[in-house]
Amino acid sequence: MNIEMIRAAAARLHGHIRRTPLLSSPALDDIAGRRVLVKPECLQHTGSFKYRGARAALSALDPDTRARGVLAFSSGNHAQGIARAAGEYGVPAVIVMPRDAPRLKIDTTRALGAEVVLYDRGREDRAAIGAALAKERGLTLIRPYDEPEVIAGQGTCGLEIAEDARALGIETAEVLSCCGGGGLSSGIALALEAEAPGLTLRTVEPEAFDDMKRSLAEGRITGHCGPEGGLCDAILTPQPGEITFPILARLAGPGIAVSDDHALRAMALAFQRLKLVAEPGGAVALAAALFSPEIRAGTVIATISGGNVEADTFTRALATLG
Amino acid sequence: MNIEMIRAAAARLHGHIRRTPLLSSPALDDIAGRRVLVKPECLQHTGSFKYRGARAALSALDPDTRARGVLAFSSGNHAQGIARAAGEYGVPAVIVMPRDAPRLKIDTTRALGAEVVLYDRGREDRAAIGAALAKERGLTLIRPYDEPEVIAGQGTCGLEIAEDARALGIETAEVLSCCGGGGLSSGIALALEAEAPGLTLRTVEPEAFDDMKRSLAEGRITGHCGPEGGLCDAILTPQPGEITFPILARLAGPGIAVSDDHALRAMALAFQRLKLVAEPGGAVALAAALFSPEIRAGTVIATISGGNVEADTFTRALATLG
Repeated sequence: MNIEMIRAAAARLHGHIRRTPLLSSPALDDIAGRRVLVKPECLQHTGSFKYRGARAALSALDPDTRARGVLAFSSGNHAQGIARAAGEYGVPAVIVMPRDAPRLKIDTTRALGAEVVLYDRGREDRAAIGAALAKERGLTLIRPYDEPEVIAGQGTCGLEIAEDARALGIETAEVLSCCGGGGLSSGIALALEAEAPGLTLRTVEPEAFDDMKRSLAEGRITGHCGPEGGLCDAILTPQPGEITFPILARLAGPGIAVSDDHALRAMALAFQRLKLVAEPGGAVALAAALFSPEIRAGTVIATISGGNVEADTFTRALATLG
Repeated sequence: MNIEMIRAAAARLHGHIRRTPLLSSPALDDIAGRRVLVKPECLQHTGSFKYRGARAALSALDPDTRARGVLAFSSGNHAQGIARAAGEYGVPAVIVMPRDAPRLKIDTTRALGAEVVLYDRGREDRAAIGAALAKERGLTLIRPYDEPEVIAGQGTCGLEIAEDARALGIETAEVLSCCGGGGLSSGIALALEAEAPGLTLRTVEPEAFDDMKRSLAEGRITGHCGPEGGLCDAILTPQPGEITFPILARLAGPGIAVSDDHALRAMALAFQRLKLVAEPGGAVALAAALFSPEIRAGTVIATISGGNVEADTFTRALATLG
């Protein structure tokens, strides 16, 4: 896993991904007491950065392997990214999802052309189902974050941040990344190391699901003490990845955790001040930029990693505007 | 009023305005039964295209005149555009608003550094108050649409549409513009005439406030039969402008009107599929792209002209998702 893989992914993704800008609002700067720049990956195809990694992984396969199709376990943004990328190549995508996944996510993934295979979480083994499908049809499994070409794809987001920060004359800043398994965070960290060494990546997680923060503090992969599900569903992972963690242990600053209330307020402020739709997990980095006492930099760059949120959750966030 | 003024405005605005992209979503194409591209001016500074015209008008003033300050009558997006542009130049902006304007709009305009002068709609004459202020302080009045340099600024949006359409290989399309007094629409129409003659501008208004549609049909400036206020507050004008109408009479296709229900559904779909916040008046062009039987083009480009909407109105729009 290295910067050359990210540069190669950027070349393959050119003309396919949306080149997202850095946005800002004087009102957000006032709230934060610092300069806040926002990288709106909610505007990426399929509504999250996951399309970058998915397209990067598919484009890295040799054509014969790709033609047999790909497999993913996901009920969320990774599924949509894989489904769209596979559709663009005209190759099969099989997405294995729990039977109790939200209807909208199942329908959206099917609408993108993927085959959705449902399983019973209580009685069936997801890995066994996937392995049997992969063997039978010759599908290639694309993991959501612990996969070098996926990390390379997410890293293209970091190349863009480095380029835009340079154009703005920003030499030092903290770059806040919404963090689940660490694919986006580790990709951005590698890109910044090479292209903008004055910019430091910091991971942001929900308070009860701070496995990356704990792991970074302890210097080894460890889990969180949170429950099974939560508001920020897109970024709830049991522990950091085997590939992503060593990268972040070497390059990232201390991890940050934010409350669900702050995530909801950040969603409301993104609505009011940036006219963007952020999902809860996609708003934690902006929440840290606005409300965390752990940030000292005069300039922060916060990813909004996704915007796939149901209307009722968004309405709940808007209620925090009072 | 000509294309050279628009090109000159583009040069002055370069580096100050946000260069907005063209966005799309396969789901919106499916609903519309045609290719739909969206120009998201809700992402423009101050949340609407109005900043383009405001900055263009201020930048066209000679420095001594500009230093004395500017004056605008507006409780909405024009006020915010003028306030921000004046703040950037460090010159005074006086905004005359009715005393019963929404508190948030008054506060937002003040937060941008403008002086807000309130008047009583029932008892006081807005024009007289403005004229007295202008004389006393040497302020220059900037009208919201019937002002050549404002139209030139809005026209820069049309130059960008022409450039991006060319890059996508689009030679013919209907360009749908949310229309109040016609500043944005006439500016875009002039830009397309020069840079993309295969693209035809069409204005879109709310059904009860279709003064431009009626005027285009009759070939002369006429009013609408609607009440005083409505959902799409940003684009409710009594009649087309004296400068904007002749431009549109020469260049635009037949006007289109959409229902408030369709405007709300377009807001909900912009939320769900584009992750963008549109205000009701800013969503009428997208509503036409998705739902109007009057469109025949295989490709439409719809402006989302602004995103300054209160949470309760947005929640009402989301409820249409069912």
